[in-house]
Amino acid sequence: MSDAKIRLFVDQPLGPGQPVALNGDQAHYLFSVMRLSRGAAVLLFNGRDGEWRAVVAEAGKRAGILTCETQTAPLRLPPDLWLLFAPIKKARTDFIVEKAAEMGAARILPVQTRYTNADRIRQDRLQAHAVEAAEQCGGTFVPEVAELQPLDRLLDRWPAERRILWCDEHQAGQPVTLATLTALPAGPWAILIGPEGGFAAPEQARLAGLPQVVQASLGPRILRADTAAVAALTLWQIAQGDWRESPE
Amino acid sequence: MSDAKIRLFVDQPLGPGQPVALNGDQAHYLFSVMRLSRGAAVLLFNGRDGEWRAVVAEAGKRAGILTCETQTAPLRLPPDLWLLFAPIKKARTDFIVEKAAEMGAARILPVQTRYTNADRIRQDRLQAHAVEAAEQCGGTFVPEVAELQPLDRLLDRWPAERRILWCDEHQAGQPVTLATLTALPAGPWAILIGPEGGFAAPEQARLAGLPQVVQASLGPRILRADTAAVAALTLWQIAQGDWRESPE
Repeated sequence: MSDAKIRLFVDQPLGPGQPVALNGDQAHYLFSVMRLSRGAAVLLFNGRDGEWRAVVAEAGKRAGILTCETQTAPLRLPPDLWLLFAPIKKARTDFIVEKAAEMGAARILPVQTRYTNADRIRQDRLQAHAVEAAEQCGGTFVPEVAELQPLDRLLDRWPAERRILWCDEHQAGQPVTLATLTALPAGPWAILIGPEGGFAAPEQARLAGLPQVVQASLGPRILRADTAAVAALTLWQIAQGDWRESPE
Repeated sequence: MSDAKIRLFVDQPLGPGQPVALNGDQAHYLFSVMRLSRGAAVLLFNGRDGEWRAVVAEAGKRAGILTCETQTAPLRLPPDLWLLFAPIKKARTDFIVEKAAEMGAARILPVQTRYTNADRIRQDRLQAHAVEAAEQCGGTFVPEVAELQPLDRLLDRWPAERRILWCDEHQAGQPVTLATLTALPAGPWAILIGPEGGFAAPEQARLAGLPQVVQASLGPRILRADTAAVAALTLWQIAQGDWRESPE
């Protein structure tokens, strides 16, 4: 454990003695909100170089410099799992992104389906939510949030080797059991969560016909999309992902 | 499937020909917000008599009467699982209650720990969230949300036969694996989610010493309490609960 309480995501490279210049928001947060001063320790990560203990070398009102000292954790990449979901109401979309980052998805892909209400997302805001979740959950990696894209177009160029766990609350599907989870083949995966109105018939037909797709039903109650996302990520992580390993 | 789109929780008994008088809020919702008129169909449930198709017999501004016709689903009780959690920020506490109802917890018990910030909850508001979640998820049961009570007092009279799955993100614990899940003994259970600051040392010692307690670690990242609640409910449901059965 480090004496530093604050974890901060930065864009710059991290390494021994490496100075890290803060932007105005970061300086404001560290020095005005959290009241850190010269010599205080912060944990930094950039999604590439693991986690580093850094100390405040210069503290200004809207600027500052930290100096990296020692690595406190190696880079820990999440398993090769994407989360595809149809954006819903703002608060719940934010929530899905936060939860996907906490649960260890490697990429987050908002998709537009026939019954998706949103025709745009604030990608930058969602990405910021993923950063915040990574800062909070102790991760050293931040999943990329992609721009909103039509599901059909994404499926047109879908990689042959990436399987899709398709969770559609309005479809029967196979109920997920411990046996199905154990039998899931290894390799790259994506979880696809349906929109609130379900998938349109042509979408259903297309998905059902894809060889990569495994259809799954999540219990006897109809879950909201945000609940379904966390539940599906949990099941995949324990079956195939990094929940199988012991924590350090 | 019924022609009725709206599901409404009511307190009254439900049965063939049974008239159900609406309160002012319910009448406002059905007739002013949703614009239903005489003869329109609604699905009713009360947590005891299953789900019934009812039709509007009288529609007024702040009152109305529905008449039950036929049962559309039997009562489906959730498994005997309690969720214990330390209330956190308002929005996340609301969220935990909503998710617990969706995920099929039978009782929801907010508990006060040494590091719990909240010293009161709005039990009526949380109960209303559980009702709304049940209306939305197609359930025929509404879990009771208990009043906030100190964890210590709850443990003083803890039933000998009810096991506790203790998820504390600040404790090592045994990582939950598919094997541990399969080996969980049957019977009444509770899930205990730690507060954001973790448990105090005396609480940890007490919990660790209880014969009913199984300690669990949920993956390598630190989950927020609301994420941990959904993840733990998912794992328990698939191992011990009603996710093992096929949906109708």
